[in-house]
Amino acid sequence: MPSNLQILLDTRPVGEASAGNFKLVTAETPALQDGEVLVRHHFLSLDPYMRGRMNDAKSYAAPQALGQVMQGGTAGEVLESRSPKFKPGDTVVGMGGWQQFSVVNAEQVGALRKVDTAHVALSHYLGAVGMPGVTAWYGLVKIIEPQAGQTMVVSAATGAVGSAFAALAKARGCRVVGIAGGPEKCQYATAELGFDACLDYKQHADALSLSKALALACPNGVDGYFENVGGMVMDAVMMRMNAFGRIALCGMIAGYDGKPLPMSYPALILMSRLKIQGFIVSEHMEVWPEALKELGTLVATGKLRPRETVAQGLAAAPEAFLGLLKGKNLGKQLVKLI
Amino acid sequence: MPSNLQILLDTRPVGEASAGNFKLVTAETPALQDGEVLVRHHFLSLDPYMRGRMNDAKSYAAPQALGQVMQGGTAGEVLESRSPKFKPGDTVVGMGGWQQFSVVNAEQVGALRKVDTAHVALSHYLGAVGMPGVTAWYGLVKIIEPQAGQTMVVSAATGAVGSAFAALAKARGCRVVGIAGGPEKCQYATAELGFDACLDYKQHADALSLSKALALACPNGVDGYFENVGGMVMDAVMMRMNAFGRIALCGMIAGYDGKPLPMSYPALILMSRLKIQGFIVSEHMEVWPEALKELGTLVATGKLRPRETVAQGLAAAPEAFLGLLKGKNLGKQLVKLI
Repeated sequence: MPSNLQILLDTRPVGEASAGNFKLVTAETPALQDGEVLVRHHFLSLDPYMRGRMNDAKSYAAPQALGQVMQGGTAGEVLESRSPKFKPGDTVVGMGGWQQFSVVNAEQVGALRKVDTAHVALSHYLGAVGMPGVTAWYGLVKIIEPQAGQTMVVSAATGAVGSAFAALAKARGCRVVGIAGGPEKCQYATAELGFDACLDYKQHADALSLSKALALACPNGVDGYFENVGGMVMDAVMMRMNAFGRIALCGMIAGYDGKPLPMSYPALILMSRLKIQGFIVSEHMEVWPEALKELGTLVATGKLRPRETVAQGLAAAPEAFLGLLKGKNLGKQLVKLI
Repeated sequence: MPSNLQILLDTRPVGEASAGNFKLVTAETPALQDGEVLVRHHFLSLDPYMRGRMNDAKSYAAPQALGQVMQGGTAGEVLESRSPKFKPGDTVVGMGGWQQFSVVNAEQVGALRKVDTAHVALSHYLGAVGMPGVTAWYGLVKIIEPQAGQTMVVSAATGAVGSAFAALAKARGCRVVGIAGGPEKCQYATAELGFDACLDYKQHADALSLSKALALACPNGVDGYFENVGGMVMDAVMMRMNAFGRIALCGMIAGYDGKPLPMSYPALILMSRLKIQGFIVSEHMEVWPEALKELGTLVATGKLRPRETVAQGLAAAPEAFLGLLKGKNLGKQLVKLI
């Protein structure tokens, strides 16, 4: 069996996460038992939720255990199989973690999913046609419930979730406005991702200033908001929500480093009769087939052309992850492992 | 026609509302036109929402106009009628405002509603079997959607909305925990209103302390929360919400004096996958018949025995209203006008 580079969570962050929280080790890959499959990872997905799990705090998921391989989505190929469900050469996605290889119990429902790479590149199954894409789909379709002609806003607009959100909302006849950090991302959002407008929050010192810019970009107000960030950006968008607006709350990356970020004007929930709903896409597996079908078609037909930022080699994962938390990536952040 | 004592909004509050914001005047009652009805008010309803309308701020309703009669719900009897729909002696509820008499266009749908006082006292149509009762019903039934065995919490527990909420939630097999200000109210909540427990928020210096007390009163966590208050109380309850909890946001009386009250831990919306929804009961007239039927039955059968605090005479209305905003009333605050 091959030897296996792994990255463990070595220490928990105090404030910002740092490279010192991670530890690169080499392990042996255990021999397969009946029903197990050996997967070689081609890509590791890096996602903001991982930062939350590095804290030892009550949340929807158990914290990432210290001394264990960092959890994470992976796409790869089956090398060996002792399960009738998979054969060597199958392309698969799963939660293999921050390592080169994983041994998966193929009998466990949902642990490993075969994917077709004829029309969609393997890496996209970790992004637009994977968890981030379904996240955008669920928030838009099941919580925001958009109507044609309405205005949708998404923060972290050029990330894997935001870019899928834009394509899905445009397909439903909505005006879509993004919020992102920096002119390059905003340019990319409007030029390539189909956003009708994109605002650079770094140009605004406070929520009121950003809110005024939003008013210009959203002349009919905001009907639906997909929130990845929290804090000042969320305050600004809430000021522009129309009556009966809906906010899908999927991430609050701005608050992941420990200090709780308040919501400044919760009275707006009442005044504008808003609905705010938090969700975790892994708790809604029933929508995945429908969502993945639409997302796969959008990618295969070129209506969603997500960019990727790809770090090379497992050892580069911590730095790439820390960069993701600071918004240094453009589009989906991946690590290529072969 | 009788002369008519009225209270006008004279000036807008800066910070706390005060008696000086109101002005007592005497006006003539105009002669009836075809389709109009003259109503003599027996009771004026005082409600927290009136404080919000005294501000000249963007909200769901237009601000109360300066120099005009304060808006408000009234219950009374028809004195004269030039409408075939009403006859002298009919008992009616409407939005007659802070005055002794009103002339109502009976052709306007919903302006005046005949009520039966055989089994329900007239005053209750301004409370448990009126707008506050329907408010509790809508938040519980349409937003919180309780299930038997779940735990419900309501702030301003002994008010007109809170007391109706308790009876409605108990009827659905829920554990109901109130939050109120002072030992007298808490005693009343458990002894007479059917609350399983009631916490005195004034015993707690901060949200964390109140939250710890809540944990004892809600051993299975909180599944539904009806929010009338905002601020520290809302922060405390949010910390105890179970996964997939629902919060109906109906009032934020703690923030009505001008300084915006933040929500301290909005990340809990995500971590606990909460739904928070603001609503205004007057926008959901379609539920009123069903809600009023249930509420009327609860009162007629003695399952909901709401107390009232009754001020005597229109001139006493401002002081009674200011007392309501400080929580000095017990149960529904009314002004008796005859």
